[in-house]
Amino acid sequence: MADDTATTIVDFRTERARYKHWKLGFDGPVATLVMDVREDGGLKPGYELKLNSYDLGVDIELYDALQRLRFEHPEVRAVVLTSGKERVFCAGANIRMLNQSSHGWKVNFCKFTNETRNAIEEATAESRQAYLCAINGPCAGGGYELALATDWIIMADDGSTTVALPEVPLLAVLPGTGGLTRLVDKRKVRRDRADFFCTLEEGIKGQRAVDWRLVDEVVPRSKLDETVKRRAAEMAARSDRPQGAKGVTLTPLARSIEGDRIAYSTVTCVIDRDRGVAEITIAGPATPPPATVEGIHAVGAGFWPLTLARELDDLILHLRANEEKIGIWVFRSTGGRDLVEAHDRALQDHAGHWLVREIRLYLKRTFKRLDVSSRSVFALIEPGSCFVGTLLELVLAADRSYMLDGVLEGDAGKPAALRLTAMNFGAYPMVNGLTRLASRFLGEPDRALDLKRRLGEDLEAAAAGEAGLVTFVPDDIDWEDEVRLGIEARAAFSPDALTGMEASLRFGGPETLESKIFSRLSAWQNWIFQRPNAVGDKGALRVYGTGQRSEFDRRRV
Amino acid sequence: MADDTATTIVDFRTERARYKHWKLGFDGPVATLVMDVREDGGLKPGYELKLNSYDLGVDIELYDALQRLRFEHPEVRAVVLTSGKERVFCAGANIRMLNQSSHGWKVNFCKFTNETRNAIEEATAESRQAYLCAINGPCAGGGYELALATDWIIMADDGSTTVALPEVPLLAVLPGTGGLTRLVDKRKVRRDRADFFCTLEEGIKGQRAVDWRLVDEVVPRSKLDETVKRRAAEMAARSDRPQGAKGVTLTPLARSIEGDRIAYSTVTCVIDRDRGVAEITIAGPATPPPATVEGIHAVGAGFWPLTLARELDDLILHLRANEEKIGIWVFRSTGGRDLVEAHDRALQDHAGHWLVREIRLYLKRTFKRLDVSSRSVFALIEPGSCFVGTLLELVLAADRSYMLDGVLEGDAGKPAALRLTAMNFGAYPMVNGLTRLASRFLGEPDRALDLKRRLGEDLEAAAAGEAGLVTFVPDDIDWEDEVRLGIEARAAFSPDALTGMEASLRFGGPETLESKIFSRLSAWQNWIFQRPNAVGDKGALRVYGTGQRSEFDRRRV
Repeated sequence: MADDTATTIVDFRTERARYKHWKLGFDGPVATLVMDVREDGGLKPGYELKLNSYDLGVDIELYDALQRLRFEHPEVRAVVLTSGKERVFCAGANIRMLNQSSHGWKVNFCKFTNETRNAIEEATAESRQAYLCAINGPCAGGGYELALATDWIIMADDGSTTVALPEVPLLAVLPGTGGLTRLVDKRKVRRDRADFFCTLEEGIKGQRAVDWRLVDEVVPRSKLDETVKRRAAEMAARSDRPQGAKGVTLTPLARSIEGDRIAYSTVTCVIDRDRGVAEITIAGPATPPPATVEGIHAVGAGFWPLTLARELDDLILHLRANEEKIGIWVFRSTGGRDLVEAHDRALQDHAGHWLVREIRLYLKRTFKRLDVSSRSVFALIEPGSCFVGTLLELVLAADRSYMLDGVLEGDAGKPAALRLTAMNFGAYPMVNGLTRLASRFLGEPDRALDLKRRLGEDLEAAAAGEAGLVTFVPDDIDWEDEVRLGIEARAAFSPDALTGMEASLRFGGPETLESKIFSRLSAWQNWIFQRPNAVGDKGALRVYGTGQRSEFDRRRV
Repeated sequence: MADDTATTIVDFRTERARYKHWKLGFDGPVATLVMDVREDGGLKPGYELKLNSYDLGVDIELYDALQRLRFEHPEVRAVVLTSGKERVFCAGANIRMLNQSSHGWKVNFCKFTNETRNAIEEATAESRQAYLCAINGPCAGGGYELALATDWIIMADDGSTTVALPEVPLLAVLPGTGGLTRLVDKRKVRRDRADFFCTLEEGIKGQRAVDWRLVDEVVPRSKLDETVKRRAAEMAARSDRPQGAKGVTLTPLARSIEGDRIAYSTVTCVIDRDRGVAEITIAGPATPPPATVEGIHAVGAGFWPLTLARELDDLILHLRANEEKIGIWVFRSTGGRDLVEAHDRALQDHAGHWLVREIRLYLKRTFKRLDVSSRSVFALIEPGSCFVGTLLELVLAADRSYMLDGVLEGDAGKPAALRLTAMNFGAYPMVNGLTRLASRFLGEPDRALDLKRRLGEDLEAAAAGEAGLVTFVPDDIDWEDEVRLGIEARAAFSPDALTGMEASLRFGGPETLESKIFSRLSAWQNWIFQRPNAVGDKGALRVYGTGQRSEFDRRRV
């Protein structure tokens, strides 16, 4: 995104007091998240965010609001998503913004927005904080895709309120945030009706939208608030979120960027621009976890697993948006294995507690973000490391891992070892619904089961290699050369070919709504984002709003 | 493909006597399909097919051989795929050919080769004609992907024979014929090993290839023939193909192309270049089917369902390769409903007979080819039509269908009606493994079951609309305008956006190896085929073999 960000760094950290575009209201167990985009509040110059259209900055706030609702508001059991504008719900992603963006920016923007919409569905299903949507004005493109991510869509029946996915007819691109997939796979709209709907600039309103499964109910404008209130109360009543619990504040995330060094408290990243590598080191916990869940709650954002999730999440987002030429992320860890294992035990023992559930889900989402990142991920397992349980997921997420067999000459320490914990067996499924272990051993499902018997065991290089947990186990003679050559070779390949290869190899086995969005839909959208019919001089995206007509190469591919 | 085919039309029709590149040998129940590509036998000028590399022409012959083995050789129960060259198995798709091809040609080439590899797997699983592969020399890229489509891979252990997918390191593109997907999803190679393997120009040989699940066995060169023979005999022994049956000759397909009219015996296509539409009409059978399966066998290629499969298959391939600006295929039918139903009954009653099984499978493959074609498919259901059972699949495959409610003014005939037969409930699954009815009613699975009770019933427009079988049912007043406007609007949209939209909406529900190849893998490959890192002036595909070094834009997308 060099074109876009020569001078600014995109910062994903924000907080409610700084929101420009969203208002958050609370009424007992129901929160209302009101989209009210400030036209002059774009992340970059060059476009106005008219008609509640959005850019990355709007979505960063939405993402932050979602996180805070989960952690800071245990009492919230239902969230109403609606518009604060008089005459429009949301016009979708801002077209001028898309138009002035590089290909990489567009793709990264869509990926982040997709992740946030997936998180809305996860909050509903797993945090039991259910999202519903009150459509109180025309709702098009990304606006409708946002509605589609909620579990119940109520639309005003007022003659002007419609839902629409007009991307194909208006802009010659796809609805890029899961819309097509959610139509046929989530809402199970009949494919021929979906086809017609997606070619209709003006969208569909009223009862037909219900009959076609595009929304769940339509009500007269005058009844909208009352109906939304009732539905929200019904959804809230079904939640298992606790009564009377206090939230945990997501305190400002301390991050320093000095030259090529990005440092948080447990995560450090050093960028080697010559080699195109980000060397990421995770520090294990310095102390044992609190003995009780009350203690964990008291520590709050300082509880190591939550700190880890927040810092790693922010680093991934930062690197994706601001360091696109850094194509290889190399993970190391340092710290005590017992301390990591103790924290995993806490996450396991208190899995039923709302806060621990949230932390586990946040870690899950963060690892999923890593899986769908268009960067090569390597893990290096060296003496002094603590790839145990939760941190072992980083090794399993890696495209390739190297584990030093023994120690380097002159090192008096102990060899590296991996350790499995219960957290490797279900807490962190990938977007395809499988654990990383199950994804790894698709061909030998018994292996993953066998490994369950080895929980807590220290697996040094030979044993880890034998168990299939690591790719290579060079000894001290080969270590340095093998790792260096592996990284150098990787850095020399075409970034695009690597992205396509990694996206294909990482997700063997079953597909889910989520994996279909990141694979089928995003891949097609990326292709279309490259095509002259969309982005060429006469492409529809390019000429939109200029009064010029688009001209298409009519050859079908 | 205007660049490529200004003067030549690609003809998919061939026969054994005309093969340039393949030799077919028979030894009782085992056939041997020997790849021996003629260097100067390219489909187009500009490249030499060295090292058993292939172009579309080579694959057209392979496709023909597969079809003939199924229909003309009921006695063949196992097929050995091997190379006729002394020092190489197959170097994959020809790079110079790819390089001089348009984007559309590359994508269409990959689609056809994918379909043929899928057909190899289908022949093994459902025709019980099992494919195995004897790798007797270096086997790279598309060569290894061909091997991956067979059910048993035997590799010579001779120091020089390797398997490799060197596309990423050498050419900055993906293995485009299912390789990545088959590695992790079919052969279930561990993802980190697959990652390493796919970045290795030189490939992997010997025991490691077995240990990593890349091949099924390695044997000394001196034992290769003997081992292959034994495995083929074992596989043949497991087949249920008949003893002593006689094959049915696939007689030359009569086709006339006069101006914009393409005519076969049951299929006719008129191209309207101004509107970008191919008007395709299927004629139902003229006579009842033979009363016995012996009678069907005697009629052979003249049996209407087989004629239909062959002609429709050829037309689809012809339009894809030679008429890329014709973006909308409009299907009509004409004939007697009872006659179509009678043929469906024959296909159902004799489903266990090898020939009828082959005909059903061929129809299945042909409809699947339609589903993955990058063309908008409309169906028009008018009085005099015979969309019954097998032909009704065309309506269900359509992105959109229009059924005239009643008759046009002045028409004394009867209104159109649809009719379901048993063939709509399992004979023709899509690439996602579901029937078109099940795919249509993902949201209301009971509907598909309910419809089973209405087999044989004439469903006129209102009933068909009610049953959810058609999209729109305009009456005579609206018919002409609604159909015309629907087609005109479609023709005006961006061809690329339509391709991405259709690929996303057509395949709701589960995913299979096949659907993953056509969605995830092909979509990524199409994207990469557009990227400067592959096809730009300094792109790796472009400079391959020139001695120049490729230069990459290092930004990750």
